[in-house]
Amino acid sequence: MQEESKIVTVIGAGSWGTALAIVLADNASNVRLWSHNEDQVKEINQFHTNKKYLPDIRLPELIVGYASLSDALMGVEHVILAVPTKAIREVLGNIRAIQKAPITITHVSKGIEPDTLLRISEIIAEEMPKELLKNVVVLSGPSHAEEVSLRHPTTVTVSSESMEAAEQIQDLFINQNFRVYTNSDVIGVEIGGALKNIIALAAGITDGLGYGDNAKAALMTRGLAEIARLGTKMGANPLTFSGLTGIGDLIVTCTSVHSRNWKAGNLLGKGKTLDEVLDNMGMVVEGVRTTKAAYQLAQKYDVQMPITFALYNVLFNGKNPKDAVDVLMARGRTHEMEDLVNVLEEKSFEE
Amino acid sequence: MQEESKIVTVIGAGSWGTALAIVLADNASNVRLWSHNEDQVKEINQFHTNKKYLPDIRLPELIVGYASLSDALMGVEHVILAVPTKAIREVLGNIRAIQKAPITITHVSKGIEPDTLLRISEIIAEEMPKELLKNVVVLSGPSHAEEVSLRHPTTVTVSSESMEAAEQIQDLFINQNFRVYTNSDVIGVEIGGALKNIIALAAGITDGLGYGDNAKAALMTRGLAEIARLGTKMGANPLTFSGLTGIGDLIVTCTSVHSRNWKAGNLLGKGKTLDEVLDNMGMVVEGVRTTKAAYQLAQKYDVQMPITFALYNVLFNGKNPKDAVDVLMARGRTHEMEDLVNVLEEKSFEE
Repeated sequence: MQEESKIVTVIGAGSWGTALAIVLADNASNVRLWSHNEDQVKEINQFHTNKKYLPDIRLPELIVGYASLSDALMGVEHVILAVPTKAIREVLGNIRAIQKAPITITHVSKGIEPDTLLRISEIIAEEMPKELLKNVVVLSGPSHAEEVSLRHPTTVTVSSESMEAAEQIQDLFINQNFRVYTNSDVIGVEIGGALKNIIALAAGITDGLGYGDNAKAALMTRGLAEIARLGTKMGANPLTFSGLTGIGDLIVTCTSVHSRNWKAGNLLGKGKTLDEVLDNMGMVVEGVRTTKAAYQLAQKYDVQMPITFALYNVLFNGKNPKDAVDVLMARGRTHEMEDLVNVLEEKSFEE
Repeated sequence: MQEESKIVTVIGAGSWGTALAIVLADNASNVRLWSHNEDQVKEINQFHTNKKYLPDIRLPELIVGYASLSDALMGVEHVILAVPTKAIREVLGNIRAIQKAPITITHVSKGIEPDTLLRISEIIAEEMPKELLKNVVVLSGPSHAEEVSLRHPTTVTVSSESMEAAEQIQDLFINQNFRVYTNSDVIGVEIGGALKNIIALAAGITDGLGYGDNAKAALMTRGLAEIARLGTKMGANPLTFSGLTGIGDLIVTCTSVHSRNWKAGNLLGKGKTLDEVLDNMGMVVEGVRTTKAAYQLAQKYDVQMPITFALYNVLFNGKNPKDAVDVLMARGRTHEMEDLVNVLEEKSFEE
């Protein structure tokens, strides 16, 4: 597709960064895959594997591992940022210290920073000086990394304030198995991607309690409504929440036993404490931090988010998961449209 | 809850009719559960079981089986119609021949009649003389019968042109485990419930082909968009498709291996022919007839419905399922909002 071969740097060699590196290499890009872990870099370059994250996959030889960030960034225009939300400021600080020419950063993480309440594209704009940052793009959608690495059909959305930048990233990634759509609603794409992890945690709890598919579907429906209510008040297009990065990603995260957030919720529902769950997982559970951030956002924007509030009380105030879910199920409101109409009218229930 | 005990007649003792009879009995209604199968009626009355449909459940003694339709209907005001779409006209004809006083009919079936393109509430209004029909109500939402019979938490929506009638039905059914919401958008509730079976068939095909969760989530997202496009053109409120009877029911039907429509699609994806699949199921697969009806509706209302069209070609024109799905995945459109915006603008893509 590309006339000349491109060089793209992927920062972060977890399962998602590695899967995206595979897509780029399949499209004939030269991919520099950076990791802070030197053993992992050696494994990538010697054996063309990344067994911790994608056990059964052989990586294309166009993917080269880098342990040196400055080597990885040298001369590139496109950087894919695939690190946990918590690590983003530190990584951006390191990039800023090295980088001389402007780059386009495409982030693929899903979270909101507690306390600052910034979306990831806002953190990037805050950390990177204007002269070093061409554009910020977000890539999101229903996409288990394992399936992408197996070349199973997957569709995602890229979004940027610059449609030209979004289309460049679309061109880099799109192929027969990996369909890429554009959407100009950055806020909606980032809010949907981040907040769906809250609903996945809650869905894990109802499954852990043995409540079944009916309860989970109701929870997901209501969850999407409360995400859309908040997002719309923050300036998102409500339709984005009906798209791949809204309902699409919500479905894949809540219904797959591979989802970390679902798994964490499932353990909570089975009676484990949050500390036990986080010890048990050994991986980042983005939804826990995002619940805190969403709880704060709901207050800031004066939006009623009953699932987020219930989960916040389970995670941070020691509330019993069963009691929290039972209260959610028994809510007094009885006309469905009261839940839904508010999405478009951009008002909270209390008004 | 009720001051005086009510009598409610449930027509049809399949899994859903029986599960709803249990909810009514739990709320202290006297339930007459009619079946055309005399052995089943005997089993219900002698053993308080209905093993073919709900193997592990003991029925409350307030449920009494009836083989005589005129006995079952005598003196009742509320009739719950729980028969397959295909049987509805015949059953209504029998009711019409017996009934003297006006009744409120609540239907719980999900389908559209091919050729006439009528929704079920419209069929009821056509078959029942005005003087015998007080109101028509539809009850729909994400609700596996098995889970309802186990008293797992479930939420559904009731809808009617008469809000008073909807609230009466809400009162009959609502309890701690079975939450009932009202919605005045009958068209949206009926279209969402019926057409979700098409998407479940298609989701079964992608699963049968081994395409994975990413592809299925994308299909469900696009499926909901095309249902909403059609429904909105038919006069539904687009928000209804974001509710329990839209996305909620879609999720439960597409992600459960218990769904008959998903199962049928799964067999198609694995290479069986439609005839083999229908023989194999031994139960009604509503989605097959609904696909034909939706294909006709899309043409009548001039709405683009790519998933419905692809499935129609698989079911009725012998198209290979893999080819049909691959064409869907590779569609040329690349801006996500083109798919979604049309829902609210009530126009088809071609305009």
